[in-house]
Amino acid sequence: MPRAKAKTAAAKRARNGKLHAVVLAGGAGERFWPASRRARPKPFLEVLKGESLLEATLSRARRLAAKDCVWTVCGSEHGRAMRAESGLPANRVLIEPMRRNTAMAVAFVAQRIAAEDPEAVLAILPADHHIPDSIAFTRAIRQAAAAARDFEVLVTLGVKPTRPDTGYGYIQPGSRVGNPAAGLRQVRRFVEKPDAARAKRYLRQGGYLWNAGIFVWKARSILEELETWAPDIHRALAPIRKSPKRTPRAALESAYRRAPSLPIDVAVLEPSRRVWTLPVDFRWSDVGTWESLADELGVAPGRGRVIAGETVIDDVGGNLIWAGKRPVVLLGVEGLAVVDTEDALLVVKLDQSSRVREVVAELKARGREDVT
Amino acid sequence: MPRAKAKTAAAKRARNGKLHAVVLAGGAGERFWPASRRARPKPFLEVLKGESLLEATLSRARRLAAKDCVWTVCGSEHGRAMRAESGLPANRVLIEPMRRNTAMAVAFVAQRIAAEDPEAVLAILPADHHIPDSIAFTRAIRQAAAAARDFEVLVTLGVKPTRPDTGYGYIQPGSRVGNPAAGLRQVRRFVEKPDAARAKRYLRQGGYLWNAGIFVWKARSILEELETWAPDIHRALAPIRKSPKRTPRAALESAYRRAPSLPIDVAVLEPSRRVWTLPVDFRWSDVGTWESLADELGVAPGRGRVIAGETVIDDVGGNLIWAGKRPVVLLGVEGLAVVDTEDALLVVKLDQSSRVREVVAELKARGREDVT
Repeated sequence: MPRAKAKTAAAKRARNGKLHAVVLAGGAGERFWPASRRARPKPFLEVLKGESLLEATLSRARRLAAKDCVWTVCGSEHGRAMRAESGLPANRVLIEPMRRNTAMAVAFVAQRIAAEDPEAVLAILPADHHIPDSIAFTRAIRQAAAAARDFEVLVTLGVKPTRPDTGYGYIQPGSRVGNPAAGLRQVRRFVEKPDAARAKRYLRQGGYLWNAGIFVWKARSILEELETWAPDIHRALAPIRKSPKRTPRAALESAYRRAPSLPIDVAVLEPSRRVWTLPVDFRWSDVGTWESLADELGVAPGRGRVIAGETVIDDVGGNLIWAGKRPVVLLGVEGLAVVDTEDALLVVKLDQSSRVREVVAELKARGREDVT
Repeated sequence: MPRAKAKTAAAKRARNGKLHAVVLAGGAGERFWPASRRARPKPFLEVLKGESLLEATLSRARRLAAKDCVWTVCGSEHGRAMRAESGLPANRVLIEPMRRNTAMAVAFVAQRIAAEDPEAVLAILPADHHIPDSIAFTRAIRQAAAAARDFEVLVTLGVKPTRPDTGYGYIQPGSRVGNPAAGLRQVRRFVEKPDAARAKRYLRQGGYLWNAGIFVWKARSILEELETWAPDIHRALAPIRKSPKRTPRAALESAYRRAPSLPIDVAVLEPSRRVWTLPVDFRWSDVGTWESLADELGVAPGRGRVIAGETVIDDVGGNLIWAGKRPVVLLGVEGLAVVDTEDALLVVKLDQSSRVREVVAELKARGREDVT
C-alpha cells in the first residue's frame, strides 16, 4: 500500500464513530417579530448576555465535538451570516436550497456525514435554545452518544418540566434501558402540545418530560429509520448519496423540491421502535416567545429588563424592552414586551406573545412584506 | 378738514368698540410629547378631525370678529408656522420675544389694540381648546362681549362641570348680575385645581364652574386692572405704549425681560373686584393630556382610535394610537396611548398621562434635549 494511501486509511479509522455536533438553524423569524425577520431569525438575535443564541449553541457544539466535527445547516438566505458568525469552514455550513422542516435537514446532514463515516454519532442541536448549564448539557449529550453508539438507538433529550407549559410537546417514558447509571428510558409515547388542563395533569402526575428537540443518533441509524418510516425523504437523498461532498446545486434543489416537509419527530421519532429518551433536569428553554425570553431574563413585577436601547425610561418596571437609538418611554404599564425597531413597533402583553406569529401573517396579508 | 383726514376719522369711529378675537398660542409642547415639541406645540397638532386645534380656534375667531380684528400671539419660535397656518397679515401676528405666561401676552395684545381703539372688546381664546359646538360658543362670547362693553367688567367663561376633574381650576359664582337673560354671575372666588375628594364635592354640591381660561373684556378695562393689580407688568408695557404698531425689537425684549411671568388669572382675575363669569354648558376641553384627548375622541374599552398611522393593528382596542409610516402592532393591551414619532416612542397608561411632562424634564436631565 502506498504511504499516502495508508495514512488516509489510518486517519479515516481514527475518525470513525466520532461525535459530530450539528447546529440546525431553521425558523421563519416570526416569533420574535419585529426584532426577528426572515433575513434575521431568532438564532441570530443577541438576546442574552450580549451573545446570540446561535453563538451560545456553537459554543456548546465546540465543547462536544472536535474542530472538524461541528456542522451547521441553514437556509440559503442565512448562509452568508452563518459563515460569518460561526467561523466554520464553508464545507461545514450546509445550505438548504429551500425550507423543508427538520426531517429533510436532518436527513441531508446525516447523509453528508455518513459519506465520510456511517458510524459517526450526531448530536442535533437547534440553534435557538437557551441552556445556561453547559457542563450538565455536555455530560448528558455524552451519555446519549454512548447509548446511540452502543445500542444503535435514536436518543431524544427529555427535560423535566418545571411548569405546566402548553407550548411544548411531552414524552411519556417507558422502561429503563441501557446503562443503568445513565437513567435512559424507552419512549412510551410522544404527546402533542397539550391544553392547559392536561399540561397541569402531566406536571401533577410526574414522570412526563418535555420533548426538547435535541437528538443524538448514529448517522447510519437515522438513515435506516428514514428509509423505513419516511421512504420519500430517503429517496430524495439520492443525489446527495451520489456526490455527498459537492452535490450539484440543481440536484440538491430537485432533491429538496421532491422531499415532503415534515418535522423529524413526526417523520421518524413517533413511528420508530428504537427511540430512547434521556431524562435531564438542567434549565432549558426553546425561547419560543417574548414571554419565555422575559422569563429567562428574570423579568418580574417591578423588575424590567432592557435588551437593547440607548435611552429607556420605564417607571413601573416589569417590562421587556428592545429599543434602538430612539428614546423609549413607558409610563404606568407593566407585563409588556415593547419592541421598537427601525421599521416596526410591537407592544404586546407578555402572556399573549405566542400570538405574534399571527401578526406577521396579518402584515403579509396587508401587503407589508417589507417589514416581515 | 381735508377729505382724506375726514375719511380716516370716520373709519376710526366705525371701528370703535369692535369685538377683536385674540388667539393665544403659548405652551412648551410638553403635554403631548413626543408628538408635541418645543418647536411644534399642541395647537399645531392635527389631533381632531384632521385639523389642528389652532385651525379650529381660528375658525371660531373668524366667526366672532371682522377680518381685520383677528389676532394671534405666539413665541418667536412659532412665528413662521403661525403666519403660515393662520393666513393672517403679519401685523396681526404678535410675536413674543420670550415666554412670560399669559398676563404679559394679554397685556401686550391689549396695549397694541388699545392704540387703535381703547374701547375695543377682546375675546381671549387659547389656541389649544376643543369646543365642538361653535354656535353655542359664538353666542356665549357675544353675550360676554355685551356685558364687557356695557358694564366694563372682566368676563370669564365658566363651564358647567361634567365630571370631578382635578386638572382644572374652579369658579364659585356669586350674585346674578347684568342682563338677566344672559345668566351672568359675579365671581365669588377662584379655586385652585382641587384634589379628587374636593372635586367630587364641587360636582355633588353643584354651582361650581370650570375656569376655562376664555376671557372677554375691553382693552381699556384690562389695562386699568393691570395697572392696579400688576403694576410691574403695566410699567413693562411702556415701550409698547410708546410705539405700539412697530415696537423696536430691542425695546420689546427689554419690556419682556422686566415683566414678571404670571398667569393672567393670578395677576389680575383673582384680586380684581370687577370680574364676572358667564356660565356655559357646551362641551369644552383644554385637551391637556393624552387621556383627555382620548376622551374627546371617544376612546373606550374595545373602541380604540388611530389619530395617525399607515399600518396599525390593535387587537383589543381601547387605545389611542399616533403612528407614522412604521407599522404599529398592539396585542393584548388596552387603555394606553402609544405615540410613535420619528425620534421617540411613548407608551403610557391613559390615566397616567398627566405625568408626561415629568418625562420631558427627565429626558432633558439625561442630555436628550434633541428629542424634547
